[in-house]
Amino acid sequence: MGLKNLLTLKNLSKSQIEKIIDLGLEFKKGKSYQTLTPTFYCPVFLEPSTRTMLSFETAAKKLGLKTLNFNPGHSSTLKGETLYDTLKTIESMGTKVAVVRLKQEGILGEIAEQLDMKIVNAGEGTREHPTQALLDAMTIYDHFGRLENLTVSIIGDIKHSRVASSFVDLYKNFEGKLNLFSPPEFGEFDHEFKNPDFEECLKNSDVVMLLRNQLERHEKTFITSEDYNLKYGMTLERLKQTKKNAIIMHPGPFNRGVELDSEILNDPKIKIWDQVTNGVYARMAVLSEVFNG
Amino acid sequence: MGLKNLLTLKNLSKSQIEKIIDLGLEFKKGKSYQTLTPTFYCPVFLEPSTRTMLSFETAAKKLGLKTLNFNPGHSSTLKGETLYDTLKTIESMGTKVAVVRLKQEGILGEIAEQLDMKIVNAGEGTREHPTQALLDAMTIYDHFGRLENLTVSIIGDIKHSRVASSFVDLYKNFEGKLNLFSPPEFGEFDHEFKNPDFEECLKNSDVVMLLRNQLERHEKTFITSEDYNLKYGMTLERLKQTKKNAIIMHPGPFNRGVELDSEILNDPKIKIWDQVTNGVYARMAVLSEVFNG
Amino acid sequence: MGLKNLLTLKNLSKSQIEKIIDLGLEFKKGKSYQTLTPTFYCPVFLEPSTRTMLSFETAAKKLGLKTLNFNPGHSSTLKGETLYDTLKTIESMGTKVAVVRLKQEGILGEIAEQLDMKIVNAGEGTREHPTQALLDAMTIYDHFGRLENLTVSIIGDIKHSRVASSFVDLYKNFEGKLNLFSPPEFGEFDHEFKNPDFEECLKNSDVVMLLRNQLERHEKTFITSEDYNLKYGMTLERLKQTKKNAIIMHPGPFNRGVELDSEILNDPKIKIWDQVTNGVYARMAVLSEVFNG
Repeated sequence: MGLKNLLTLKNLSKSQIEKIIDLGLEFKKGKSYQTLTPTFYCPVFLEPSTRTMLSFETAAKKLGLKTLNFNPGHSSTLKGETLYDTLKTIESMGTKVAVVRLKQEGILGEIAEQLDMKIVNAGEGTREHPTQALLDAMTIYDHFGRLENLTVSIIGDIKHSRVASSFVDLYKNFEGKLNLFSPPEFGEFDHEFKNPDFEECLKNSDVVMLLRNQLERHEKTFITSEDYNLKYGMTLERLKQTKKNAIIMHPGPFNRGVELDSEILNDPKIKIWDQVTNGVYARMAVLSEVFNG
Repeated sequence: MGLKNLLTLKNLSKSQIEKIIDLGLEFKKGKSYQTLTPTFYCPVFLEPSTRTMLSFETAAKKLGLKTLNFNPGHSSTLKGETLYDTLKTIESMGTKVAVVRLKQEGILGEIAEQLDMKIVNAGEGTREHPTQALLDAMTIYDHFGRLENLTVSIIGDIKHSRVASSFVDLYKNFEGKLNLFSPPEFGEFDHEFKNPDFEECLKNSDVVMLLRNQLERHEKTFITSEDYNLKYGMTLERLKQTKKNAIIMHPGPFNRGVELDSEILNDPKIKIWDQVTNGVYARMAVLSEVFNG
Repeated sequence: MGLKNLLTLKNLSKSQIEKIIDLGLEFKKGKSYQTLTPTFYCPVFLEPSTRTMLSFETAAKKLGLKTLNFNPGHSSTLKGETLYDTLKTIESMGTKVAVVRLKQEGILGEIAEQLDMKIVNAGEGTREHPTQALLDAMTIYDHFGRLENLTVSIIGDIKHSRVASSFVDLYKNFEGKLNLFSPPEFGEFDHEFKNPDFEECLKNSDVVMLLRNQLERHEKTFITSEDYNLKYGMTLERLKQTKKNAIIMHPGPFNRGVELDSEILNDPKIKIWDQVTNGVYARMAVLSEVFNG
């Protein structure tokens, strides 16, 4: 069936999510896919990105797409052109899919509706990062063989995290327990999945999802890196407290000695590099789904 | 026969121009073209560009060229290397065509003569933008079926516009009427095609070509954006005053509410997105002509 | 046999060096090579580069590699991620070879050992630039038909030059005479191949290798550009003093009127553009050797 776009996970059904994960795992096992006609792909990253941009580019090239180089430093968007006009320009050149990252929230959906070109959201303010949630779910499924009946705890500055926000949208579709632990230093936090008991989140979870301490998004220092590590960091001692079959995830880039310690990086519970690998396959699945949509 | 380079339209004959437009329209209709051997293409944009750079890259990739990534922020040119040395370096690596945009006027021709590599001008100061003029002519031809016997009015800051300058070079080859209207706020303006009667330009033209208000090139504010829109902007009311079969063009990126109003963008007279689409095909034609030259 | 990585020439044998040069010359003569499966190449240039980055990209594309666009301005590395984590991320995405340029010395080797991905050093601080030395040797071999029994003089700020440093590593493997002349204005200089007699270096050498006056690496002005040219620049007069069959090299980008004068650039003794051409083939040889390693 496919998707017209991928802007959010809020309106995706459980079976649509499962289909993307399945397809991603098939790509991982070597399923090949080659576009029949030369089809252009354009990244439009209006916020800095390394890993997401490279991950999408790798996915696009594996699918045989022709990728354009859009340099946001050169972008007319930054000089006053509206995002719609930039995207309409790219569409008018014959591009079939644009992958967009932007700071401003709430405008991409309306713009995408006015375009024939497919739009994939690669990160939108603090609200949306749907492909990250899909690769995270794919990583969980890859390890546990299921998404149901798991306890997933997300730990960090949840209010500012589009990674957390999109994962909540995704996991609401599945029977499982979700804990959101936001350190009190980050301020008031209320959410239906809020769990203020850090120890419980640590000890009773199948999946511990650490968030990046996004110092660059904070207007003030809520908590020093040293204190964060001391109180909430994944140290060797805390890792030992997690369940035997638990996995630890982080969207990256991670701050060593803050969210997690260097000495645990090679522990088999740590799935950070698997997440990166799965990211390419999850994005291949998303791109091929929007092409069929 | 082909062209050695495309640096300017001043020395192109009418039949050479017509050949490029014809070829562009053939590409638009699906004519395929595949280079036989791996041939390298290098963009050398020493001035910021989004649309022209992407347009050329799309054209180059459609022609099967291998495109290199030149990041002007990294460029030795900007650190003192001469443009000749930069281009000679790129040529020595085996690149067959470079597409160059630069601020400085009058040096590209002499440099191109010293190189075997083909050079295509992608914008040179306030004087030259030959591929823009070709795509504009292609858009006019596509609508009217001819370039002759038309009245074309260019409206805006003509003195600073390479778009206007190159179109004048092109249109001098054809039997038609050219009006250049430069708002008096931009200062003294004298030209063989000068027409100071804005109302006449608006009402009697087959083609109204709006220029971008290039605020970034102006040393002072000649006229505020509000005043520009009030006096010369393409509003719905002014659009109604144009001829029934007239078309309105703009090279982009356009300033909404300045050169033209948002509400008219979807009017069939507005050919802005067609220009963008034609740009890719016109550039395919130019690149294949220089390869045959 | 191939190489696991190419990080330095210090541990390469004479026959390994000769094999790379031979293979480079074969590529120059038209030897074709096509990777069988889609293989990803990623440039990681954490220091500005034009020529080396384009040269590697051309080499990679000629070998049929899929090249990714890594924009260091966007890099998480620059925001605190360690270089290992950046490279491990790129490896986890499926990239098979990364070409790395960086300012910091002495860390790349240890990092490369922890990765399965191949690493090629594209310039490391003031110590290493192995592919430059290989292309220089290839240029010398191409002219003289041998690397043995030649007198090679390197002239310039040798202490700060990774070009000189890597060439010394390479040429130590061959029977020949090496002179390093560092103008006294650059300060104390001691080296087993030091030769303080500029006139002798100029007149008795088969190869005169000029170094770039790297003004941007100097904390103070050791010598003005005018004085440098007056005392040590390759002027027409000095060129006439070189041996009849001598060649003059420069790694580029060169400063006209400083290290050498414009008027001699087209003299057949000047091999600067041959070096650029050979750079592509030498890098094809290196990349294919690491793929076989």
